[in-house]
Amino acid sequence: MAEELTGNVLVAQSGGPTAVINASLAGVIDEALNHGCIEEIYGGQNGILGILQENLIDLAEESQQTIRGLRYTPASALGTCRFKLRKEADFERVVEVFKAHDIRYFFFIGGNDSQDTADKISKQAAASGWEMRVIGIPKTVDNDLVVTDHTPGYGSVIKNIATTVREVACDGESMGQHDLVYILEVMGRSAGWIAAGATLAKRRDNPNDPPHLIYLPEVAFETNKFLDDVAEVLKREKFCLIVVGEGLVDGNGNYISTSAVGQDSFGNEQLGGAGDFLKGLIDQHFDGLKTRSFRPGHTQRAAASNASKADNDEAYLAGKAAVEAALDGQTDKMVTFTRAESETYVCETGLADLSEIANGIKPLPASWINEDGVSLSFQFVKYASPLIQGEVVVPHENGLPKFVRLGGQRVERTLPPYDLNA
Amino acid sequence: MAEELTGNVLVAQSGGPTAVINASLAGVIDEALNHGCIEEIYGGQNGILGILQENLIDLAEESQQTIRGLRYTPASALGTCRFKLRKEADFERVVEVFKAHDIRYFFFIGGNDSQDTADKISKQAAASGWEMRVIGIPKTVDNDLVVTDHTPGYGSVIKNIATTVREVACDGESMGQHDLVYILEVMGRSAGWIAAGATLAKRRDNPNDPPHLIYLPEVAFETNKFLDDVAEVLKREKFCLIVVGEGLVDGNGNYISTSAVGQDSFGNEQLGGAGDFLKGLIDQHFDGLKTRSFRPGHTQRAAASNASKADNDEAYLAGKAAVEAALDGQTDKMVTFTRAESETYVCETGLADLSEIANGIKPLPASWINEDGVSLSFQFVKYASPLIQGEVVVPHENGLPKFVRLGGQRVERTLPPYDLNA
Repeated sequence: MAEELTGNVLVAQSGGPTAVINASLAGVIDEALNHGCIEEIYGGQNGILGILQENLIDLAEESQQTIRGLRYTPASALGTCRFKLRKEADFERVVEVFKAHDIRYFFFIGGNDSQDTADKISKQAAASGWEMRVIGIPKTVDNDLVVTDHTPGYGSVIKNIATTVREVACDGESMGQHDLVYILEVMGRSAGWIAAGATLAKRRDNPNDPPHLIYLPEVAFETNKFLDDVAEVLKREKFCLIVVGEGLVDGNGNYISTSAVGQDSFGNEQLGGAGDFLKGLIDQHFDGLKTRSFRPGHTQRAAASNASKADNDEAYLAGKAAVEAALDGQTDKMVTFTRAESETYVCETGLADLSEIANGIKPLPASWINEDGVSLSFQFVKYASPLIQGEVVVPHENGLPKFVRLGGQRVERTLPPYDLNA
Repeated sequence: MAEELTGNVLVAQSGGPTAVINASLAGVIDEALNHGCIEEIYGGQNGILGILQENLIDLAEESQQTIRGLRYTPASALGTCRFKLRKEADFERVVEVFKAHDIRYFFFIGGNDSQDTADKISKQAAASGWEMRVIGIPKTVDNDLVVTDHTPGYGSVIKNIATTVREVACDGESMGQHDLVYILEVMGRSAGWIAAGATLAKRRDNPNDPPHLIYLPEVAFETNKFLDDVAEVLKREKFCLIVVGEGLVDGNGNYISTSAVGQDSFGNEQLGGAGDFLKGLIDQHFDGLKTRSFRPGHTQRAAASNASKADNDEAYLAGKAAVEAALDGQTDKMVTFTRAESETYVCETGLADLSEIANGIKPLPASWINEDGVSLSFQFVKYASPLIQGEVVVPHENGLPKFVRLGGQRVERTLPPYDLNA
C-alpha cells in the first residue's frame, strides 16, 4: 500500500474529442469521490490552456445527474485545445498552478501528444520537488497509441462507420444497375485503423458484402489498380461501395487529395478530399458511372447516439483505473488495456510509462491487410469485433439526444494572470 | 361499399430511397393479407423497370420475420430505378404485364415523379378497359409533395440531421476558441425542408444554440451577408455551426457549388459542393479561422438506426391506408396526411388525385423563414417537431444493425421479353 497523499484532483481533456471521452471523465470523478484523501475535484477548462490560465472548475459542485449524463455526452465536456506547451516557463507555470491549488493528482485524458505533455509535466513537478501523481488516460479515435491493445474512442467510431456502411449499402443496392459507386471518406490521418473498421459491416462468411474496397494509408495508392478494382466489383455486384481513409498516400508518400488544407499546431497535416479525388478518377475514366462521395468528417467521432457500449464501458473503466493507480502510488504512467488470453473477450487494465506512449505510433499490422490491398484479414475482424459490441442508450427529449453541459463553477484564482505569448 | 374486385396485388418502390420506405411496403403486405379478394401479392423489382421486364417476385413467400424486418430496414428492399416511362409502348407494356398476372391492385411508393407515372399508368389501364385500382403511397426525404401535410421519409432524415447537429455541436463547442467553423451540407435539391429541419437541434428557448446559421435554397445567397453572419456568430459564440442545403442558389437562381455534376434521368440537377464552396469563401476572407466541411450525402437518408418512430409508424400506416382505399373502390389517388386540428399532434390519412400530386411542388413557406434569412420561425418548429418523435429500435447482431433482404422468389414470366430501347 502506498503512502497516503492528501490533496486535490485536477482532471483535463486534450486533443480531438471522441464519443466516449466524457465517460473517462465520469470514471475519474466517480472513483475520486470514493477516497477520503482526495479533497477537491477540479477540472481544467480547455485542456492545458485552462491550466496555464488558471481556469479551473469545481466538478464536485456538478449535480449527480450531470455527471451521469457525461456517460453518453460526446466530445470534451471540459473543453479541449490545440495548444502545445513548448517553453520551460509553460511547464513551470503548470506546476505553480498545481501548488496554488494543492493538486496532488493530475489526470490527463488524451492521445500521444497529450501523454507526452503529461510526461513532461510529471517530470517538471518532480524536479520542482512537488509531490504528486500524474496518470494519463488514453483517448483517440485513431487507435494509434502503443502498448495498449486499443484505445477508448476507437470502438465507437468504427461502430458508427460500419453502421453507416450497412445503411448506405442498402441504399446503393436498391438502385441495382451495376453503374453506381458510393465513396465514404473516413478519418485516419496516419493509419488506416478507422477505414479498416468498416470491414465489420460485412456479414460473417460474406466477403463480397459492402464495403467492397477499402483503401488504407498503409497501401500505396495506384490509379490503374484502383480503376481495375472498381471495374471488377461492378461486374460482380449491383454497385460498388468504397471506403477510403483520409490519409491515403501515393508511392512517394504524398497525400492523395484534391486539396491539402494546412497543418494543425502539432504539425499534423489537415487532410480532406481523398474521397472526392477518387470520385474524380472514376468520372474521368469510366463512361456512364454515377459516383457519389460522402464525407461525414467530425460527425463520425461525435456520434454518441451510435456509440459502442463496450467502448463506453472501457472508457469509464480507464478513468476509474487511473484514480486507483494514483492512489496506489503510481505516477508518470498511462492506463493501458490488455486483452486476456481467453476464448471470449476480456479486457484488463494495466499501466505503461508515459514516455513510452508519447514516443510511439502503433501501425495497423501489415499482416492484417489481405494481399489484394483492399480488404482485411480475419485477424483484424477478431481484433476489432469485440470493441463495437453493445449499444449505448442515450436519453432523448423531444425526439433528440439529451446531452449534458457542465455547470462550470469557477475555482477562485489565486495567481497573477499568465501571458501565453511572453 | 365498393364492388369486390378479385385479383392480385403488385407493389413497387421508386425514386431515391428513404429510411422508412420499406415500412410502407410492410404496411401494404400486412393489410393485403387481411383481404380474401386479394389472391397474390407481387413486388416489382427496381420500380417500373422491373414491371416492364416482368421481374416480379412473390412477396407472400417471404417469411414473416423478413416482412417484420422491413419495418426497420432502410432503402428500397424491392429495388428502385431511375428509369422514366416515356413512350406510349412503355405504358401499354405495363398494362400488358398487369393483365398477364391479373394485377387488379397497383401500389406505387414514391415521390412526385413516381405519382405522375402512377397517374399515367392508371389512365392507360382505364383506356385499355382493364379494371383495376391504382393508389400512390407518398415517399420522399424532400417533403415537397403537395396536398399532404408532410411525407414519410422526411421526419427521419431531419431527426438524423438534427441529431448529428447536436452531436457535432458538442465537438465544436469543446474547442472553445472562437475561431472554428463547422459546415454541414445536407440534402435538398429544390427546397430547404431538410436544412430547415436542422433547427430542431436547438433546445427550446435557446435561439443561440447550434445550428447558428442555416442557408436555404429559398433565400438568394449573398457572399457579403454570409461573411458578416459568420463574423457575428464568432463574436458571440465559441464556434459557428452552419447548415447549408445542397440546392443553395445565388440571386440569379444559379446553384452555388464548386462543381455541378450533371443531371439525372428526370432532368434534376445532381448537386454537390455548396458546403465546400462556403468553406472556400471563409478560408479566402478570414485569417486564422479553422473551417471544416462535412457532407454526409446519402448516408443521411439511409440512417435507419436513427429513424423517427413517428415517421416510421406513419409510413407503415400509409401502406395500409393505400390497400384499404383500393378495396374501398378508390383509384388514381395518392394517400395523404392531414394534421387534425387539435392541441396534441394527430395525423390522419386522406386521398388526393394523383394528377394533383404529380404537377405540384410544395415550397417551404416563406413566412416560416425569419427575416435574418438564416433561421426558422416557431411555426416551422411546431410543424416539424412532431415528425421526429420517438426512436425506432433496430435489432442488432454483433454490434451492428441487422437488416433484412428479401428472398425474392421470382414469379414465372409469361410474356415475351421487352426491349426497353426499341
